Amino acid sequence: MTNRRLYELVSDDGASISPFVWRTKYALAAKGLDYESTPLAFTEISQIEGGRFNTLPVLVDGIKVIGDSWAIADHLDVAYPARQPLFPFAAERSKAVFFDDWIGSTVRPLLFRICAFDIHEKLLAKDRDYFRSTREERLGESLEAAHAKRECLLPGLRAALEPVRLAARKAPYLGGQSPSYMDFMALGVFIWAGSVATTELLEKDDPVHGWLGRGLDLFGGIGRSNHLPGLGLAR
Amino acid sequence: MTNRRLYELVSDDGASISPFVWRTKYALAAKGLDYESTPLAFTEISQIEGGRFNTLPVLVDGIKVIGDSWAIADHLDVAYPARQPLFPFAAERSKAVFFDDWIGSTVRPLLFRICAFDIHEKLLAKDRDYFRSTREERLGESLEAAHAKRECLLPGLRAALEPVRLAARKAPYLGGQSPSYMDFMALGVFIWAGSVATTELLEKDDPVHGWLGRGLDLFGGIGRSNHLPGLGLAR
Repeated sequence: MTNRRLYELVSDDGASISPFVWRTKYALAAKGLDYESTPLAFTEISQIEGGRFNTLPVLVDGIKVIGDSWAIADHLDVAYPARQPLFPFAAERSKAVFFDDWIGSTVRPLLFRICAFDIHEKLLAKDRDYFRSTREERLGESLEAAHAKRECLLPGLRAALEPVRLAARKAPYLGGQSPSYMDFMALGVFIWAGSVATTELLEKDDPVHGWLGRGLDLFGGIGRSNHLPGLGLAR
Repeated sequence: MTNRRLYELVSDDGASISPFVWRTKYALAAKGLDYESTPLAFTEISQIEGGRFNTLPVLVDGIKVIGDSWAIADHLDVAYPARQPLFPFAAERSKAVFFDDWIGSTVRPLLFRICAFDIHEKLLAKDRDYFRSTREERLGESLEAAHAKRECLLPGLRAALEPVRLAARKAPYLGGQSPSYMDFMALGVFIWAGSVATTELLEKDDPVHGWLGRGLDLFGGIGRSNHLPGLGLAR
């Protein structure tokens, strides 16, 4: 019996598909904290916890209700000081923020454009109109138009992943010898895109696969609970 | 009287122009270590210290002679344990390596293509043939052909700097509240390109300027010893 509850964004087959929820799932696992999951549609987020949130993850931890993956990560370090910290030093947190800025301004936007149509097709039916209207505005084109160009974007995506590829050649994890929040953020992005993509995102021999396999195996293989067609991986 | 000597790559006006030498100059300054400089041409590197080196920086520290900026940084932390470490924790070093991979696979190659012709024009006369032949091979085109396209590359460069821009909005330095080796690496890249570029690399109102100004001011303003036309800054 746990007093933690994690609200997760799910697709029509019940898979957890938010990159931000996934980094929190890894953070909770790294701290050794269990939780109950509540699956949600995009259009249900505003209906939980008094309507205070419009994004996921949201974590209920006892009497606290926390939105935003960074706020949750900080909460976990403060609330569970006896467990291995996600950010042992302030400098490490700052560097993880830089990594988030990097992946969020380069890799994630490319993956979003490549996968936007595929995400739409996997969403719960009640989310599709909301997703289409908000995301087509962000893309500046229709989901179908973005989808038609996705093969052109794959070389740019693979080039943008070069820092991950170089890091993966030097050490088992992006932050060195042991997994860190940098890995959890990157794994979240790959699990998100890998869950929905209907094209293979990486070349078969991309060294990124080595790092990715280690990451998916962490904490009893939580990252392998989704079918990951975009990464060429069955459940 | 110091027993440290740093070999530096210089241009025809005596300015230190290697991004890798600059990160070492910042590292030495951060540790509070003085040194004598020996200016070198590209084509003189193979003539120093028994011909063991083909890149700069090279640091002579007492009886030790060390090439490669990372090896020098590690040496400084080992040899001067009583001074503020460049990498207080292994995890911090790993994250700096990731940052180096990022800047080295994105920003630096773009800047190189934008500035290659300008570098050639600033080099010592004896370096120009060597530079042209090796760099045109790397570019896959003539220095003049790359130069003719540089305006087309500026938007991509500015987009590639988005992680630096986002970090600069959150904290004074890339690694947080105080300068770290991540800043030194990035400053080295900007001083290198800023010293040679004959076009302004950043928009006047780019938030990157705020971080850059703080970085150039560090340690008595060592970063401002070069005239930096590519950054719109006189000496």
